[in-house]
Amino acid sequence: MTEFSGILMVRRTIRKYTSEPIDDKLLNELLTMGCRASTTGNMQVYSIIITRDEQKKKDLAPLHFNQKMVTEAPVVLTFCADFNRFNKWCRQRKAEPGYDNFLSFMTAAIDALLVAQTVCIAAESKGLGICYLGTTTYNAHKIIDLLELPKGVVPVTTITVGWPAEKPDQVDRLPLKAIIHPEVYKDYSEEDIEEYYRIKEARSDSKQFVKESNKETLAHVFTDIRYKKADNVYFSGVLLKVLKDQGFMNLLL
Amino acid sequence: MTEFSGILMVRRTIRKYTSEPIDDKLLNELLTMGCRASTTGNMQVYSIIITRDEQKKKDLAPLHFNQKMVTEAPVVLTFCADFNRFNKWCRQRKAEPGYDNFLSFMTAAIDALLVAQTVCIAAESKGLGICYLGTTTYNAHKIIDLLELPKGVVPVTTITVGWPAEKPDQVDRLPLKAIIHPEVYKDYSEEDIEEYYRIKEARSDSKQFVKESNKETLAHVFTDIRYKKADNVYFSGVLLKVLKDQGFMNLLL
Repeated sequence: MTEFSGILMVRRTIRKYTSEPIDDKLLNELLTMGCRASTTGNMQVYSIIITRDEQKKKDLAPLHFNQKMVTEAPVVLTFCADFNRFNKWCRQRKAEPGYDNFLSFMTAAIDALLVAQTVCIAAESKGLGICYLGTTTYNAHKIIDLLELPKGVVPVTTITVGWPAEKPDQVDRLPLKAIIHPEVYKDYSEEDIEEYYRIKEARSDSKQFVKESNKETLAHVFTDIRYKKADNVYFSGVLLKVLKDQGFMNLLL
Repeated sequence: MTEFSGILMVRRTIRKYTSEPIDDKLLNELLTMGCRASTTGNMQVYSIIITRDEQKKKDLAPLHFNQKMVTEAPVVLTFCADFNRFNKWCRQRKAEPGYDNFLSFMTAAIDALLVAQTVCIAAESKGLGICYLGTTTYNAHKIIDLLELPKGVVPVTTITVGWPAEKPDQVDRLPLKAIIHPEVYKDYSEEDIEEYYRIKEARSDSKQFVKESNKETLAHVFTDIRYKKADNVYFSGVLLKVLKDQGFMNLLL
């Protein structure tokens, strides 16, 4: 393994940061590397909002269910699907953009996510730690208000970045053979599921989780507490409304 | 800059590959690194379909509008949002999964894209070249049929991977200041748009593109030829139907 493969193999999410700041030069270097990621037709239909201001972090925190990384990290980056800039360019050239639809949202969201992950790997290669905030898609409407995102712009994910003040154990992953399918998807038998989830369920941290949650199995911790149907359905409605409000659900010619 | 930053800064998409294969050991190493990417709640709600078979590549090619990388690359990877495996585990534990909705699709799609980009960077660090196929979201329904993806699984992106047989010039990117917004989104003035797109429009390859396309401006090449409204609207409808058919649009409790 090269040193670089090492970075990818030993990485872990970092949720505690020192008070040391990240200077603009380093941050811009990471973001520049991020923008070298592949982008559909070289359109670069994304934007990155940089939150450093203490008050802005305090305002942002509740939109991420008060995860403490938001206020404690020196930098919070919100990655947005953005057709606003591209549309303005088209109109300024008297070309009529046709990007007010769901496919274009997905195109821009994919662009934004490839940049986000590249920034994360670039950051980790510099010794920084990162944490993704999946809450971005839950509260996209409130993030839009706070960060003053215009029509054509939707936040897709958020990362907190800082110098690590912890070194947690690496969490488990399913065995690779549970994830990959040569040539065609081979659906999972009962035995496959038993085999692939056995290690995860046997971990002491999983057992602790089940016990503390007072649940029967680890699966119930997910379905009944962490990612509940009622929440998923509610926030699905919110997110689809956000796409409509931001101008990505016009499906008529 | 470290050697690793170098990899990210000098990268370019590679569309021509040598006939040299990628062995299973190396491919599995790349995929294992990919699976170390952040994943929502450590659910790993994604799958990766590996296409190596010549006939399967031929069948896949038209679904990607016959981009020749599909048949010429030794390996094609289709990254899928996948709640099927997780749902099966939940049900096998008598827990009732609530992931048949749009938010859950987005969660799984984000998971899949972070893995895809990590695999790309891992591949490039080994000297391999990659190309993203944005056509995946256009023809998701046909890819589902060919790769035998069950309900709960939607292809999100595809990459071709191989040993480079070309070294194209690095393409341009917008200046970083066009992409980033400190604290709040600063909408673009006419002058901003002129400044940010000037370099792109002045490039000889852009001018050649406009001339060959017989169009007035580079923006028209995008709106009238490459990413047309009629196509976007049509494929938006197709993709939303795919999400419904694959079980991600149940918005009722």
